[in-house]
Amino acid sequence: MPDPAKAIEALARELPGRVTTDPGALAAVAHDASHLSATAAAVCRPADPEEVVRLVRWARREHIPLTARGAGTSLDGESVPVPGGVVVDLSGWSGVLEIDPVDRLVRVGPGVVNADLQAALRPHGLFFPPNPGSWTTSTLGGNVATNASGPRSFRYGPTRAWVRGAEVVLGTGERLTIGGRAAKRSTGPDLVSMFVGSEGTLGLFTELTLALAPLPARRAGLAVPLPDGRPLAPVARALATATGLGLSAVEYLDRGCAEALARVENARLPADRALLLLEVESADEAEETRHLEAIGATLIGLGIPEAASVYPEADRLWTLRGQSGTALDRTLGPRVREDVCVPLSRLDPMLEAIAAAAREAGVPLYLYAHLGQGSLHPNFAIDPARPTAARLREAVLRAALRLGGTVSGEHGIGRVKAPFLPGEIGDGGVRLLRALKRACDPDGILNPGTLLSGEAAP
Amino acid sequence: MPDPAKAIEALARELPGRVTTDPGALAAVAHDASHLSATAAAVCRPADPEEVVRLVRWARREHIPLTARGAGTSLDGESVPVPGGVVVDLSGWSGVLEIDPVDRLVRVGPGVVNADLQAALRPHGLFFPPNPGSWTTSTLGGNVATNASGPRSFRYGPTRAWVRGAEVVLGTGERLTIGGRAAKRSTGPDLVSMFVGSEGTLGLFTELTLALAPLPARRAGLAVPLPDGRPLAPVARALATATGLGLSAVEYLDRGCAEALARVENARLPADRALLLLEVESADEAEETRHLEAIGATLIGLGIPEAASVYPEADRLWTLRGQSGTALDRTLGPRVREDVCVPLSRLDPMLEAIAAAAREAGVPLYLYAHLGQGSLHPNFAIDPARPTAARLREAVLRAALRLGGTVSGEHGIGRVKAPFLPGEIGDGGVRLLRALKRACDPDGILNPGTLLSGEAAP
Repeated sequence: MPDPAKAIEALARELPGRVTTDPGALAAVAHDASHLSATAAAVCRPADPEEVVRLVRWARREHIPLTARGAGTSLDGESVPVPGGVVVDLSGWSGVLEIDPVDRLVRVGPGVVNADLQAALRPHGLFFPPNPGSWTTSTLGGNVATNASGPRSFRYGPTRAWVRGAEVVLGTGERLTIGGRAAKRSTGPDLVSMFVGSEGTLGLFTELTLALAPLPARRAGLAVPLPDGRPLAPVARALATATGLGLSAVEYLDRGCAEALARVENARLPADRALLLLEVESADEAEETRHLEAIGATLIGLGIPEAASVYPEADRLWTLRGQSGTALDRTLGPRVREDVCVPLSRLDPMLEAIAAAAREAGVPLYLYAHLGQGSLHPNFAIDPARPTAARLREAVLRAALRLGGTVSGEHGIGRVKAPFLPGEIGDGGVRLLRALKRACDPDGILNPGTLLSGEAAP
Repeated sequence: MPDPAKAIEALARELPGRVTTDPGALAAVAHDASHLSATAAAVCRPADPEEVVRLVRWARREHIPLTARGAGTSLDGESVPVPGGVVVDLSGWSGVLEIDPVDRLVRVGPGVVNADLQAALRPHGLFFPPNPGSWTTSTLGGNVATNASGPRSFRYGPTRAWVRGAEVVLGTGERLTIGGRAAKRSTGPDLVSMFVGSEGTLGLFTELTLALAPLPARRAGLAVPLPDGRPLAPVARALATATGLGLSAVEYLDRGCAEALARVENARLPADRALLLLEVESADEAEETRHLEAIGATLIGLGIPEAASVYPEADRLWTLRGQSGTALDRTLGPRVREDVCVPLSRLDPMLEAIAAAAREAGVPLYLYAHLGQGSLHPNFAIDPARPTAARLREAVLRAALRLGGTVSGEHGIGRVKAPFLPGEIGDGGVRLLRALKRACDPDGILNPGTLLSGEAAP
């Protein structure tokens, strides 16, 4: 049995100045945005890829697990350490290394904050489409590791579609370059897609190459109050399948979420109604006018006659929307935050199943959603550590699978939902993931218990 | 040593009426669109997934390789059989099983021809964006197995982005369902992307679930004659990075290709110049007018003053463009057809390297390209079986890799380019692909020699 304290001392000698066991530092990385927490033995801040290689080799030698961490905004325990393990803090890898407006790509360190990248790209007339709720604080390494995508995925697709390449240090200690700069490639199974969403279980990103889109000339945000009792699914389907509206995001906040959010400083949101939050992209003012008219007509056709508040800077709306988690924290305290996605054709029964689960557990429900994609975030006002909470969660996830949906549309699997992944991908899918895990991390040192649970090493 | 003839007899007993050893049938599946050919021992046409399972189990028992085949339009030997192996002809699986306009998806058999799907979708105001050159004859199973994408990938991205799920029979004989109907999912490494581009080496598709896009109200094709000697790279970069032009495809034919194509019946193409072929999508006539004016102004700014021929039905242009292979067959006979893709910033040195390779080999060059993505199809008028041809091919592929590009932008790897894949993905990438191969096809019976060469079984 190795002596963990001695092993950490050896790491500190191996990477001088990069390792801390300071209790404050350990406390700062004990949590993510889930209800889970654990105390690591140390935090390591490697300074370059070769230091990451040495860290991984040390971890293999000592059989000590590593958990990569950016801003710690993961929602299901993806960046919560293994007790006694080491947190690999990559938040300092925050360099935008290259912006190439011709190839429309950017090379970044995994610690760059999403919003900081957007700010760096703006002068070039470009942007990185994924904008998860946490975009003002979360890192691109975390966005890619969980395939967290955000409102704009309605138009632009998931984060996976915007990762062109990466430098990775595998759990073997090997450095691997996947993908690259070319706009497309047909060279076998896509290696990049194997690492997007892998939640730190296959390798540690040391660099990302991301594809970019041209900034539209105009981008307006709309907040549309919904009449009470208006059925949601027809609205989702109508907005998702309409054309000529210029929509790049179709979001929803129920009345409880809207009330919580309206209390955020300078929110200036209507507080007494459920809301649609829409984003409209246009090439010029004339097109924007046409889009807004067409949206207005579509909404009236859906029985939503009330005028929308228009935010000329849509990003303000997404910053505000990103605060709904914090706003609900204040209103509700600890709660179950779920994240399912179902085909739009099955939205009605999924909404019913969510409401029924809340009713049966006797807890209030707060729902927000990437509505246009059937991607739902129900929040249940119950301590997630309670057994009732586990049953409630299970009812919601099983309903999603029954309806042809997924147990995670956005947040990832982490430790919280690892028990539910096999129900979605089946024994065959689990076997493929395990094969990949064995090839990349034969000793199971990378974030064990995340994604696939119930095994220290595969 | 098993007796192959007895094994085939056993298969014919196992799947009565599904197996033929008729020489005409074997000759019909001996080739694809590459220069390779081989004679299979039998052709099997299983009728349902359970028959595919029985076929795969038989192949494992008898150690006889299986090669999936749709329309046989693959360009690098992806569907050329292993000598003495069995061709799995899936071209009869041509049912469009479900069109869902709400979820904007379609379920199809792998044998549905791309153009037939487009025709079935048109009344619903939908289309499947990938349209490889072979779209009038190639099957969706083949499109997905090679990640062949075509002109519209300029706007819509590769085939990989449009595959939402699949039913697969693995080389183990297991049936596996990957992905599904939800618009997005964040449930670990993407299993669907592991099978897209896998070229029949991991499993056999028995069903595909594909995402769809709304048909634009108007879609015009433009054929723009290029002044002689106009440098190509600045044109590519200008059109790829411009906004407000409504472009969904930016293609190029050099003068030789244009001349060959102009001889196709009813081509009505200018024959004496290199051509840009553009596709413009618009919501209405007014927008189309604005787009065409903006394109005209952009071209004039690039020193391309001549008016374009406008084709109100852009598909006609892509049907014609898809005949460039056949047209060059007539003009050139056997030739080396290459398929590299480089970042647009590296287009000049790549074009130079292609021209230099042709010069050094002393052979004429015919180039067509998905220009807007730096995806180039140089054709060299030389018998691909000659040693000089191999050296020429190697020079082109090495240049692509040196310039940060890929050895296949579109066609896949097949048998022809298998020796070059390790140079692109490195030892680590090869190891990942092998791990996936072992998990899906432990006996190496699925299309051995394709994608990764030099091994009968992994």
